[in-house]
Amino acid sequence: MTSWQEKAKAKRESVLALIPEEWRIQNPPSIEEQVDVTGSYIHQFLTDREIDITETTADDIVKKTVSGQWSAVEVAKAFCHRAALAHQLLHCLHEIFFSAAIVDAEALDDYYAKHQKPIGPLHGLPISLKDQFHVKGVETHMGYVGWIGTFEGKTGTGKERNFESEMVRELRNSGAVLYCKTSVPHTLMSGETVNNIIGYTLNPKNRHLASGGSSGGEGALIGLRGSPVGFGTDIGGSIRIPAAFNGLYGIRPSTGRMPYEGMANSMDGQNSILSVVGPLATSVPSLRLVMKALLAQKPWLHDPLVNEIPWRYEQEREILELTGAIGDASKAGKLTFAVFRHDGLVKPMPPVRRAIDMVAKAMKDLGHEVIEWTPPPHSALLEIAMKTWVLDAGTDVRTAFGLSGEPMSKQVSVYESLEHQFSASEISALNVELRSLKKAYLDYWTNTSKITSTGRPVDAVIAPVAPFPAARRERYNYYGYTLFTNLLDYTSVVVPVTNVDKSVDKVDEPYDFISDTDKGVWESYDPEVYDGAHVSVQLVGRRLQEEKMLAIAEYVGKALGKEKA
Amino acid sequence: MTSWQEKAKAKRESVLALIPEEWRIQNPPSIEEQVDVTGSYIHQFLTDREIDITETTADDIVKKTVSGQWSAVEVAKAFCHRAALAHQLLHCLHEIFFSAAIVDAEALDDYYAKHQKPIGPLHGLPISLKDQFHVKGVETHMGYVGWIGTFEGKTGTGKERNFESEMVRELRNSGAVLYCKTSVPHTLMSGETVNNIIGYTLNPKNRHLASGGSSGGEGALIGLRGSPVGFGTDIGGSIRIPAAFNGLYGIRPSTGRMPYEGMANSMDGQNSILSVVGPLATSVPSLRLVMKALLAQKPWLHDPLVNEIPWRYEQEREILELTGAIGDASKAGKLTFAVFRHDGLVKPMPPVRRAIDMVAKAMKDLGHEVIEWTPPPHSALLEIAMKTWVLDAGTDVRTAFGLSGEPMSKQVSVYESLEHQFSASEISALNVELRSLKKAYLDYWTNTSKITSTGRPVDAVIAPVAPFPAARRERYNYYGYTLFTNLLDYTSVVVPVTNVDKSVDKVDEPYDFISDTDKGVWESYDPEVYDGAHVSVQLVGRRLQEEKMLAIAEYVGKALGKEKA
Repeated sequence: MTSWQEKAKAKRESVLALIPEEWRIQNPPSIEEQVDVTGSYIHQFLTDREIDITETTADDIVKKTVSGQWSAVEVAKAFCHRAALAHQLLHCLHEIFFSAAIVDAEALDDYYAKHQKPIGPLHGLPISLKDQFHVKGVETHMGYVGWIGTFEGKTGTGKERNFESEMVRELRNSGAVLYCKTSVPHTLMSGETVNNIIGYTLNPKNRHLASGGSSGGEGALIGLRGSPVGFGTDIGGSIRIPAAFNGLYGIRPSTGRMPYEGMANSMDGQNSILSVVGPLATSVPSLRLVMKALLAQKPWLHDPLVNEIPWRYEQEREILELTGAIGDASKAGKLTFAVFRHDGLVKPMPPVRRAIDMVAKAMKDLGHEVIEWTPPPHSALLEIAMKTWVLDAGTDVRTAFGLSGEPMSKQVSVYESLEHQFSASEISALNVELRSLKKAYLDYWTNTSKITSTGRPVDAVIAPVAPFPAARRERYNYYGYTLFTNLLDYTSVVVPVTNVDKSVDKVDEPYDFISDTDKGVWESYDPEVYDGAHVSVQLVGRRLQEEKMLAIAEYVGKALGKEKA
Repeated sequence: MTSWQEKAKAKRESVLALIPEEWRIQNPPSIEEQVDVTGSYIHQFLTDREIDITETTADDIVKKTVSGQWSAVEVAKAFCHRAALAHQLLHCLHEIFFSAAIVDAEALDDYYAKHQKPIGPLHGLPISLKDQFHVKGVETHMGYVGWIGTFEGKTGTGKERNFESEMVRELRNSGAVLYCKTSVPHTLMSGETVNNIIGYTLNPKNRHLASGGSSGGEGALIGLRGSPVGFGTDIGGSIRIPAAFNGLYGIRPSTGRMPYEGMANSMDGQNSILSVVGPLATSVPSLRLVMKALLAQKPWLHDPLVNEIPWRYEQEREILELTGAIGDASKAGKLTFAVFRHDGLVKPMPPVRRAIDMVAKAMKDLGHEVIEWTPPPHSALLEIAMKTWVLDAGTDVRTAFGLSGEPMSKQVSVYESLEHQFSASEISALNVELRSLKKAYLDYWTNTSKITSTGRPVDAVIAPVAPFPAARRERYNYYGYTLFTNLLDYTSVVVPVTNVDKSVDKVDEPYDFISDTDKGVWESYDPEVYDGAHVSVQLVGRRLQEEKMLAIAEYVGKALGKEKA
C-alpha cells in the first residue's frame, strides 16, 4: 500500500514531468527573492511574440484567430509555455495536457485552411478549467489524494479519464482549445487554494498573498497571463475571490444560467445554496464572449438545470443607452449605484475602502447617482450559510479524505469534528428561513425605486469582495462579503480597481473591534506586506442580470482606465 | 376545549351562513337523484343573464369589462351566485367573501366611470383561489381543523386574516375581483379533495366521481362555471388532475415562472421537488390572459424565486407560424407530437386511450408528425417522488393534524405511521439521482431531433393525465402520469378532449396485470359509472416553455372543437 504522501508526490511529479525541458525554470527564486513574478520577471522567459499573444485579451485573440491572422497552434503554444512557467512559480495546475491541445489546435488550423472560416466563436481560444471539469485523457482529483486514479473517488466506473463535462463539449464545439486544469483547495470550501498534492497556490502579483479560492488556480494562472480566460465555480465567492485577488474580471452568474452538468463537486446534491460556474478573464468582453458562445450552444437542451434564457441583448442595450454609448446621446439617462461600505460585522482594510470610494467617485463624476446601501442585516444570511456548509456533518468531504488517509489543511479543519447531520425537517426550516430573508432583501432592493432619482431600483451595488485585497496565508477568516450574493443568488461581477499603495493605505488606528474576526482582519493588514497587491470591488445586481451587470462592469472598468475604452 | 368535530362543524356552518337566503338550494338532491349537476340542472337556479355571464370565458369577460360593456359588479354577483350553488352541490369552497368582492367590484366600476379606462388587464374579472392563498379578511385553513382561527397553525402572529400572498396583490393590481377560496385535501397530497371541514368535493359532471385534487375545489367550481378562472398549485398533478377531471384547461408552469411567495403549503422548505402555482380555466386564452397579466406585474421584483422572464411572444409566434395561423401560410411547417400511450406500469382505461388516439389523429390529419414516445423508464423517477413526499417522515403534516386531534382521511393515511427522517446525506443522494434522471430524460428528448422530420426535438408529448378520466371515491391509486413532469419540471397543459361513452368505451378483457395497482385501475373502470365523464390529455413540453405549450394547447383545442376557432 502506497502512503498518501507517496501518491501525492507521484502525481505532483508526473504533472511537472509534462513540462518540456526548455520551459523549465532552473533554480526558481524563493518568495522572498521574487515577490512579484508578473511583468518583467516572467517576460525574461518568453519571446516578444509570446508576450504579445499572451497579453492579448480573449476577445481580441478570437478576432485574430477567427480571421486567420493568428494560428490556433501558435496561440496555444504561447499559452502552454506561459502556463508551464506559472505552475513552476505558483503551483496552480492540477493537470497539463499541452500535447492534446496542440493536436486540437492543429485540427482547428486545418479546418480554417480548408473552409476559410472559424469552427465557432471561440476558434483557437485557449481556455483553462478549474479541476472540477472532467476532460478526456486526464483525471479530476479536486485536491484529494484519494481521488487520484479514480472517477470522483470511485473506480471501475468506466468514466475514468474518459468522460467530459457538458460545458467541455460545448467549449470544444465553439472552437476552444483546452490545455490545463487548475488547482483548487481540497473540499473547495476555502478562499485559499491548498491541498496535499500541489501544495499552496501563490498570488503572482505578490507571492506572500493567497491567489484566492476555491478557483485559486484560475486566479493565479490568468493573473500571470498563463490563460486568457478560464472557468471557475462559486458557492461562497470562489470565482470572485480569485478574480479580485489577481486583478481580474470575474462573474458569478445566477443559478441556472451556465451548464454545471457532469462536473465534480463537493457535497453534491446539497440544494439549499447551489454552486454556479462562470468565467474569469482579463476583460469584460472576454467574459461576455465565452458566455455568449455557451448560450449559443443551447445548454438547456443538455443540462436539465439550465434555464432556457438565450443571451439577452435588451439588458445590455438598456445600459448602453443609459450611459450614452449607443442611441441618442442627448437622451442618455443615468444609473443609480449603491455603495456598501461595511456589513456591520467586519471592517474592510484601508485599500479596499479606498477602492470602493474610487468607484463611487468615478460614477458620480460621470453624472450617475450614488446612494448608500443599508440592507437588512447580513448576519442572519451568513448564519444560514454556516449551517448549509455542514448539513451533512462533513460526511462527504471526510469520505474523500478517508480514501487516502491524508490530513485536512488548516483552512478546512472545520470539517474535522462535526457530528450532527441535519434532518429533513431541519433542512426544510433552513430553506424556509432563507427564502424569507431573500424576500426581505428583494423588498429592500425593489423599494429603492422610491428614493432613486431614476425611479428605478438601484442598478448595481458597489461592494467589497473581501475585507482584504487578498488574504495572507492561513488568514482568510471572513467570507461575508462574497457569501451574501450566493445566499441571495444575485449576479455579481468583480472589477479590478487599483493596487495597494503603502504610502496611501495606512494602518487604521485600533478601534472598538466588533469581533475577533474583525480584529483579526485589522491585525492582518500590513502596508509593507500588501504593497502593490491588486484591489478590486464587486458590482452586485439582482438575480439573472448577467447581461446588464457585464455592461455596467465594462462601463465602470473603462471609467477606471482598467478596460479598453 | 371544543372537540375537533365541533370546530369543523362551526367552520363549515359559518361559511354556509354567508350564502344569501335567496341563493340557497332547498332540499338539494342526493348524488343518485342528480348525478350531473351541470347544464340544465344548474341553469334552473340562474337568470339567463347570469348564465350568459358565467358561461363566458375569462378572456371574453375582460373584453366586456375593460370596454365598459359589463359592469364589474354584475359580473361579480353572477359568479358569486353560481359559486354559492356549486358549493351547496359539491362542497368546493373553504372561504366565501362575496361582500368584499362586491365592494371591490364597485370600486372598479367607479374607477371606470371616472377614468373611462380599466384599472388593469383583469379589470372586473372574478378569480377563485385555492385555499393556500392568504387573503385579507378570511383565513387559510388548508383543510386542517387545527389551522382554523390561526395563521398556518400559529396564533399571535399578527398575520391572521391580515396578510395577503404576493400573487393576491398582483391580481388586485391587475383589476381582478377575488370572492372565494376553494377546497383542498388536508396535506394537499391527494388527487381527491377531502378534509374534515367541508367533507368530499364532488365532480359536477358526475358526482359519483372525484373532482380531483389537490386543487379539487377549483376543478369543481370552474367545472360548474362558478368561476371563469382560478389558481391552483401542482407538486404531483394538483392543477392538472382537477383540470382533467372537470373538462378544463390547466397549466403546470415550470418552477420560477409564477409567484408562490407568501402562500401556505405542506412540507414547506422541501426543495427537491417544488410545488408550482398556475391557472385552470375554460379556455386557453383565459390561462394566457392571467399569466400575462401577472408577468406584467414583474413578480421577480417581489418574489425571490421568480425568474426574470417576461412573457415571450417569440415562443408563441413560432407555433403560430408553424401552424399557419400567422405569417405566410404557404411557408407554414409542421409540429412533431409524440404519443405516450402507456408508462409500462399502469394501463390507462379505455376512454383515456381513446382520447390520446383522438388527439394524435387530429394532429396527423392536420399534417403534423406523430411519433411514439419511449422515454427512459419512469419507475426510477416515481421512486424518487415517493421518497420525497416522506423525507420528514410526515412530521409536518402530523403536526398539523395534531393541533386538533382530527384523524387523517384514508387518502393520505400513508403519513400515519412513518418513522424515518431522511438525513442531509440521504437527501443529497436523492437530489443527485434525480438530476441524473433529468439529464437522461432531457437527452432522450433532445435526441429526438435525429428522428423527427422537422429536425427539431419533439414539440409536445401527448400523454394521459391519469389512468382514469376521473377517480372514483377512494380509488385514486396511481399518480405516475402526472408526477413525471413534476420530477422533470416540465411544462404541461391539460386539454379536454371528449367524454366517456359507455357504448364505445367498453371494459378491457382481463389481462396479465402488471401490478396490483394496474389491476385496481382495471377493476375500477365501469362504463355505467363513468358514462359522460370528461376525458382529457396533457401536452407536455420541456422546462420553461409556457408560451409555446399554451399556443400548442390552443391549437389542439381548436382542432378538437373544444376551443373557439
